[in-house]
Amino acid sequence: MINPIVWTDEAVVLLDQRALPEVETYVELHELDEVIAAIRDLVVRGAPAIGVTAAMGLAQAVRKMPLDVSGFTTAFDAACVSMEAARPTAVNLAWAVRRLRRLVERHLDEGIPAVCARMEKEARFMHAEDIEMNRTMGRHGSVLVPAEACVLTHCNAGALATAGYGTALGVVRAAVEEGKKVSVMADETRPFLQGARLTAWEMQRDGIPCTVITDNMAGHLMSRGDVDLVVVGSDRIAANGDVANKIGTYTVAVLAREHGIPFYVAAPTSTVDLAAVSGADIPIEERSGEEVVVIDGKRIAPVGVPALYPAFDITPAKLVDAIVTEEGVARAPYTESLRACCDASAARTEQREAAS
Amino acid sequence: MINPIVWTDEAVVLLDQRALPEVETYVELHELDEVIAAIRDLVVRGAPAIGVTAAMGLAQAVRKMPLDVSGFTTAFDAACVSMEAARPTAVNLAWAVRRLRRLVERHLDEGIPAVCARMEKEARFMHAEDIEMNRTMGRHGSVLVPAEACVLTHCNAGALATAGYGTALGVVRAAVEEGKKVSVMADETRPFLQGARLTAWEMQRDGIPCTVITDNMAGHLMSRGDVDLVVVGSDRIAANGDVANKIGTYTVAVLAREHGIPFYVAAPTSTVDLAAVSGADIPIEERSGEEVVVIDGKRIAPVGVPALYPAFDITPAKLVDAIVTEEGVARAPYTESLRACCDASAARTEQREAAS
Repeated sequence: MINPIVWTDEAVVLLDQRALPEVETYVELHELDEVIAAIRDLVVRGAPAIGVTAAMGLAQAVRKMPLDVSGFTTAFDAACVSMEAARPTAVNLAWAVRRLRRLVERHLDEGIPAVCARMEKEARFMHAEDIEMNRTMGRHGSVLVPAEACVLTHCNAGALATAGYGTALGVVRAAVEEGKKVSVMADETRPFLQGARLTAWEMQRDGIPCTVITDNMAGHLMSRGDVDLVVVGSDRIAANGDVANKIGTYTVAVLAREHGIPFYVAAPTSTVDLAAVSGADIPIEERSGEEVVVIDGKRIAPVGVPALYPAFDITPAKLVDAIVTEEGVARAPYTESLRACCDASAARTEQREAAS
Repeated sequence: MINPIVWTDEAVVLLDQRALPEVETYVELHELDEVIAAIRDLVVRGAPAIGVTAAMGLAQAVRKMPLDVSGFTTAFDAACVSMEAARPTAVNLAWAVRRLRRLVERHLDEGIPAVCARMEKEARFMHAEDIEMNRTMGRHGSVLVPAEACVLTHCNAGALATAGYGTALGVVRAAVEEGKKVSVMADETRPFLQGARLTAWEMQRDGIPCTVITDNMAGHLMSRGDVDLVVVGSDRIAANGDVANKIGTYTVAVLAREHGIPFYVAAPTSTVDLAAVSGADIPIEERSGEEVVVIDGKRIAPVGVPALYPAFDITPAKLVDAIVTEEGVARAPYTESLRACCDASAARTEQREAAS
């Protein structure tokens, strides 16, 4: 079992994903600023994982906030704003913050200590819920996986990108648990190498055959018939089914369509942003080009030559054969199918809130 | 002026392309085995460059061979076979060896020392001829470049891949010399990073604006409208216009077509292999996966996880908008246009041989 995010009474504890696969080391974060920095500096990455981390960070931070309503509200608001600004593309971050904001609004009249207790409970519930949703998503998604298949994936949408189990790799894991013979082809995913470092590490731990390729090999291997389907995660999905995900995903989707290979996205409904009409409404994080031209401290390009680093891209809905959520498999037209999944999820949340 | 290959009286001298851009260092190769190892180990790479290097290596080696016809022929044959086996995909290697074999056959009756002198002259001529052909190719190709353009290129098809000036980058250089406003977008080209290391270095030396991107960004940047045309080199072109080039080229070609962006190949007729009916007849070099998962001595994937490294891929002729050669610009149907270019080149060679 891979536990990338751990709650303790004093800290949010994160498996440092920058150090993998060489070293397995955890960092303890005691302050809100430390949690925000960890999200920004990619100690933890992956939309669902940063959502859960944000919730835990806020739930820890409120315990140090003023106990009067006005002071608390001001401090909590500021914390929410800072947290949301940590990274722009993954909507799970905003989703997690909104969820805690809502909880505060609903229960502020119970007093600050009670609200803080509720927030801890909620953050820990979101952690457990995320794993549970991934398992459900995996079962839905494994229907799409043939009895014997090579799954190409991009970046890491595994246990490390979530509270555990994974979205895209959750589909792989579920298929394997059902006895299917699945192997994974992992795009190394430059520049951060999430595929080579993280996906390969996860698959090796689970004994699932995995082969690493450079991002530029996918087309050639598809043309050779080596890939049966593509499954990736997502950082934000627009109402029309346009999918924001790690840079390079769009290229994989174009290639998959060119070769008649199904292209699937696995993501919880918390990744769906119904307020974004299409991909054009999704902000793409531009990171520093230095992260491209410096690998492990060594510069690969001449000093003075610039590099670009758009960290995500948009795959238009027309290239997406299905979106696997915890509420079922959505197909085109996505405007209807995604809304139905989101409605089902909202109904479940309301039920739970009414019971609490 | 970049001189990747230098002839001296005692050695073949190569700019060590593995050390660029950090260090500019030359290696002197005195033995045939050293030249073969340098080609295999990527001290020199790029189809035209390894063709010229092979010719120089053989021209140096024959001086140490027996002076009797039988002994010389046996030794020369063995040298040719070893040289041709250094790398399988670039046909320029076989082309250079064949050219020297032919010279030996035609002039053996003049005696071994005379043949050796002719071989030196021929190898040095091939070096000068390659640069001249690249300049001619550049002029032909620059017609395809708009007055203001961003050219995406993959790998390095520049001065470093040739005796000088370059094929794809020769087209860029010629366009710049004609006063066009050209900028280059360089795919970093994993795993050997020829784009980030070599193309960026060349462009910086010539003062041509260049931006490095990871291979997985091309699709996103094309969708944003940032790329006007693609120009790449080639390691072997089949009679039907199928193009073998550095792994990842095929993906770029699929993306270019998807976005309505012209995709051009620049290569001398020595890269055209009329004996290969289609790309299916071109051997693809499979290198060790270790070269993928180890970057500058550091392993990026867990020990025990395998990686693939097909070093080249095939871009089908249907995705190629034009092939720029020193004999002019070939367009579909390539079976006719490429043969015409090759015939023109052969006629030129025959003329020269008749005059010598």
